[in-house]
Amino acid sequence: MEINGVPIEDTYAEAFPTWIARIIITAVTGDWAVRAATEATGFATSAIGCPCEAGIESTLSPDETPDGRPGVAILICASKKKLKEQVVERLAECVLTAPTTAVFDGLPSAGEKIAVKLHFFGDGYEYQKEVGGRKCWVIPIMEGEYIGEEEFGIIKGVAGGNFFVMGENQMAALMGAQAASDAIANVCGVITSFPGGIVASGSKVGSNKYKFMPASTNEKYCPTLREKVADSKVPAGIRALYEIVIDGLDEKVVGEAMKTGIKAACTVPGVKFISAGNFGGSLGPYKFELKKIL
Amino acid sequence: MEINGVPIEDTYAEAFPTWIARIIITAVTGDWAVRAATEATGFATSAIGCPCEAGIESTLSPDETPDGRPGVAILICASKKKLKEQVVERLAECVLTAPTTAVFDGLPSAGEKIAVKLHFFGDGYEYQKEVGGRKCWVIPIMEGEYIGEEEFGIIKGVAGGNFFVMGENQMAALMGAQAASDAIANVCGVITSFPGGIVASGSKVGSNKYKFMPASTNEKYCPTLREKVADSKVPAGIRALYEIVIDGLDEKVVGEAMKTGIKAACTVPGVKFISAGNFGGSLGPYKFELKKIL
Amino acid sequence: MEINGVPIEDTYAEAFPTWIARIIITAVTGDWAVRAATEATGFATSAIGCPCEAGIESTLSPDETPDGRPGVAILICASKKKLKEQVVERLAECVLTAPTTAVFDGLPSAGEKIAVKLHFFGDGYEYQKEVGGRKCWVIPIMEGEYIGEEEFGIIKGVAGGNFFVMGENQMAALMGAQAASDAIANVCGVITSFPGGIVASGSKVGSNKYKFMPASTNEKYCPTLREKVADSKVPAGIRALYEIVIDGLDEKVVGEAMKTGIKAACTVPGVKFISAGNFGGSLGPYKFELKKIL
Amino acid sequence: MEINGVPIEDTYAEAFPTWIARIIITAVTGDWAVRAATEATGFATSAIGCPCEAGIESTLSPDETPDGRPGVAILICASKKKLKEQVVERLAECVLTAPTTAVFDGLPSAGEKIAVKLHFFGDGYEYQKEVGGRKCWVIPIMEGEYIGEEEFGIIKGVAGGNFFVMGENQMAALMGAQAASDAIANVCGVITSFPGGIVASGSKVGSNKYKFMPASTNEKYCPTLREKVADSKVPAGIRALYEIVIDGLDEKVVGEAMKTGIKAACTVPGVKFISAGNFGGSLGPYKFELKKIL
Repeated sequence: MEINGVPIEDTYAEAFPTWIARIIITAVTGDWAVRAATEATGFATSAIGCPCEAGIESTLSPDETPDGRPGVAILICASKKKLKEQVVERLAECVLTAPTTAVFDGLPSAGEKIAVKLHFFGDGYEYQKEVGGRKCWVIPIMEGEYIGEEEFGIIKGVAGGNFFVMGENQMAALMGAQAASDAIANVCGVITSFPGGIVASGSKVGSNKYKFMPASTNEKYCPTLREKVADSKVPAGIRALYEIVIDGLDEKVVGEAMKTGIKAACTVPGVKFISAGNFGGSLGPYKFELKKIL
Repeated sequence: MEINGVPIEDTYAEAFPTWIARIIITAVTGDWAVRAATEATGFATSAIGCPCEAGIESTLSPDETPDGRPGVAILICASKKKLKEQVVERLAECVLTAPTTAVFDGLPSAGEKIAVKLHFFGDGYEYQKEVGGRKCWVIPIMEGEYIGEEEFGIIKGVAGGNFFVMGENQMAALMGAQAASDAIANVCGVITSFPGGIVASGSKVGSNKYKFMPASTNEKYCPTLREKVADSKVPAGIRALYEIVIDGLDEKVVGEAMKTGIKAACTVPGVKFISAGNFGGSLGPYKFELKKIL
Repeated sequence: MEINGVPIEDTYAEAFPTWIARIIITAVTGDWAVRAATEATGFATSAIGCPCEAGIESTLSPDETPDGRPGVAILICASKKKLKEQVVERLAECVLTAPTTAVFDGLPSAGEKIAVKLHFFGDGYEYQKEVGGRKCWVIPIMEGEYIGEEEFGIIKGVAGGNFFVMGENQMAALMGAQAASDAIANVCGVITSFPGGIVASGSKVGSNKYKFMPASTNEKYCPTLREKVADSKVPAGIRALYEIVIDGLDEKVVGEAMKTGIKAACTVPGVKFISAGNFGGSLGPYKFELKKIL
Repeated sequence: MEINGVPIEDTYAEAFPTWIARIIITAVTGDWAVRAATEATGFATSAIGCPCEAGIESTLSPDETPDGRPGVAILICASKKKLKEQVVERLAECVLTAPTTAVFDGLPSAGEKIAVKLHFFGDGYEYQKEVGGRKCWVIPIMEGEYIGEEEFGIIKGVAGGNFFVMGENQMAALMGAQAASDAIANVCGVITSFPGGIVASGSKVGSNKYKFMPASTNEKYCPTLREKVADSKVPAGIRALYEIVIDGLDEKVVGEAMKTGIKAACTVPGVKFISAGNFGGSLGPYKFELKKIL
């Protein structure tokens, strides 16, 4: 299979379940919503070393938010136990503290809810108020009043949807990966949690040489080691590759994001091969076959 | 005292010691360095609820970096013990994974060092190389090779330098605070770790009503509670205020940042009062008297 | 009439016909399309002193463009005669010269067309090619090949849709205007051609004092002259106002943009009054009554 | 000669005299100054088809501007006659109309001055005021008062300093050119007037086939024509090239910018050759030999 002359490997991406909260952050302007959301979703690339995976899912126009102001929706992904703690801390430290923000549940129809009781911060001066049909708490603060919902729906979603963008050199692969990541930003329901949506250094579980390491470089995907390791997965002529990793609300949107991203990558000159990462199907319950989704 | 007709209260900011690492992140373009640095310094507004305080300190042109590429310097601030762990995790998860980044020590002359041994990630394929006079490790990864120093100087700096920007209404106070935060971005050696560099909700230690809360809204600084609480610190005619909180490498740069920020805030129409926060001098060893620094 | 407690004056905006071309600019990434479009639509705020009015109308995802790459649509508005010249010059100087761009007709079903024969630049080395069903010319250039359509539909649209955002002080009015302008950016078919989409200095035709001036400050809308001129249109308590000026493909989208912008402005604290500008109905054939459109 | 292994051709860039005005635009925040400046310097890539060449020269912190607010300096370059007209129109339409802007002369010590009498716009309500030692006019407008100087120093500077960044493929050449353009943005006294600072399509004077064309593609620099034209200047292995064109206040800063840009380009993997453009020395009085400036 080929797109724009770029071969698509006949393989699949393997992905895993994760719990996800979707939070709507609004502000006086879209810029201020983005600033709060960027801080709240920082240090959240990979559940391996970060306390959660998080990112901006979509930008919302005023007619898409409960209070009629511009906003963004963020996804926070973690185990169920960690998820509540991370939503509490990230909203309390990065959004309640940010200028003009309000916060709303982005999954109001989810069956399960977590309670994020920021209103105790009001020390008794807080009160309840309905905004856009949502039951909110109002907390007096320095800038005036913070307004926010405190119950957030959570659902079981999908983490680790992925594909590889391989290039004849590093800049071609990078621009291909950027085109993919930018295109995925238009797909609702998903995030790419790494910086710029792109992973430059993939890992394998454990380490052959350093037994104390939980993860180490995946030498089979390192172009500079192509001649040095057995079973290199780097095709001839490929000098750099990047991975796009996608978390999303369900299988459908993750597949849609993979399709959108791969098609975008294949418009960039110098992109020469597309593949995807899996562990032989032994670990993750979700399989995204490239042939099928494209 | 007045600046541009804005009264400056005769008070002082109280600040505290913190350990600080300064990391230089370079990349193929400045944009990519900023993307990695933004992720690496996210979820890091306040040491109370975040694992550290962090931010982008300055933008570096190619002739200011060891490898001749554009970059940024970030500061990571925490207790000595937490600092090492945070530098390791944030570099490993947010910078090593980001496209085209390299990492260098931003405090090479500091007496104390922390070791951040990312090279074990190379699983034996890593090797050493000198770049711009710095002893680096080269780790084969998917995009090619990651290059970075692994010893980082740390110093005892200053956290919590601050001032309040008070306005006749919320938008005036906000724009005053933004002008202040933007101006401080030009001062070397400091960061403002909150979203957009601005704090919208100040806190007091503990809570009067909810004994389980470690911190709660500082009602004396809430404009909507001005008539409801005793000893409100909100002057008549002030309807919103923001705090700018500054961490820096030493007292001198923090004082310089406060001066620069206050002067900038006072150029914005509708800014009506400047003050600063302290705990009566009982807690922090550093005092920044507004009269003196201005 | 009131929105969020902000009075809406019972008046109307008066607008005029203009010829409009809609050009789709694509590039390897959205950033590069925006850079080319920003240059191509610069120096184009008002037909009074600029050669045309122009702006970015919308951002296009890869599945919305003929070549499957990210893009933007721009509108260029002028008299019929000037329009062709401006489209030629702006595409030739600002888009053909920009990295990785391609250009497509954004009004393919328009009855009238203008021809923009950039292919002569190819000096005989150019050739024709179909891209996404569009008949394009390919021109060899330094970066490789430029691809573009050369027939562009033009239609008679509407220029000068407008409203005023008035605030209790300058920063409130400015943030209200920015919220309005940002919200209008989500409406398809319209542009706001001034910097940031906002006009800070409205004008009247001619001048009372300087007979050689074709236009001068509209003193009736100057807050600092409220007590000095007869018939000031500045309500009591208003210390600053901004005008949002909208050009669009037809009456419907201009009215939609006005509605969207006014609603957004009224969410900003300190915005106190909304009005619109007209010349008594004597000049422009289009009238947008605020009551009706809201 | 080589930099980072990239061969630098032993040639020179040929450049021309131009008249230049340098205008300082300040605003309540740096963002607003940039928005006004971007509009004012748009449609200004090349004097061939645009009314002038213009761009943002540098960003100014509050302590570098007459009114203590953040700002930018722009350069406007044209023939002496066109320069005055362009400064008048661009300030009147794109800066006076923009929120919160003020304007100051950026070449106060220049011997020659042009007068830009915007104050007639005040229709008699204008008055004079000193700001930061500058004699300004204050004009009542909708947002309050516009403040600006009206005498601007102009000097004879240099237009058309240039170099070529050539790559093994398009994305490598593009990223090399972007690294160059970004680095040049740190050099004071110069602009790169094309979108993103980069030229994708170089031209020769006239046309061989179409006699009515004043300029056409420079086929000797087209990689796709390398085998089809005699005397191609495209080295073997080069599949794309970009030109960086620099205008500046004097020979020294243009040479400095060329050096800074070339060094930056040579840090990007896949950049394979650096050259410069000239007309055999017959046209321009300025010669920048690459060997000498590097």
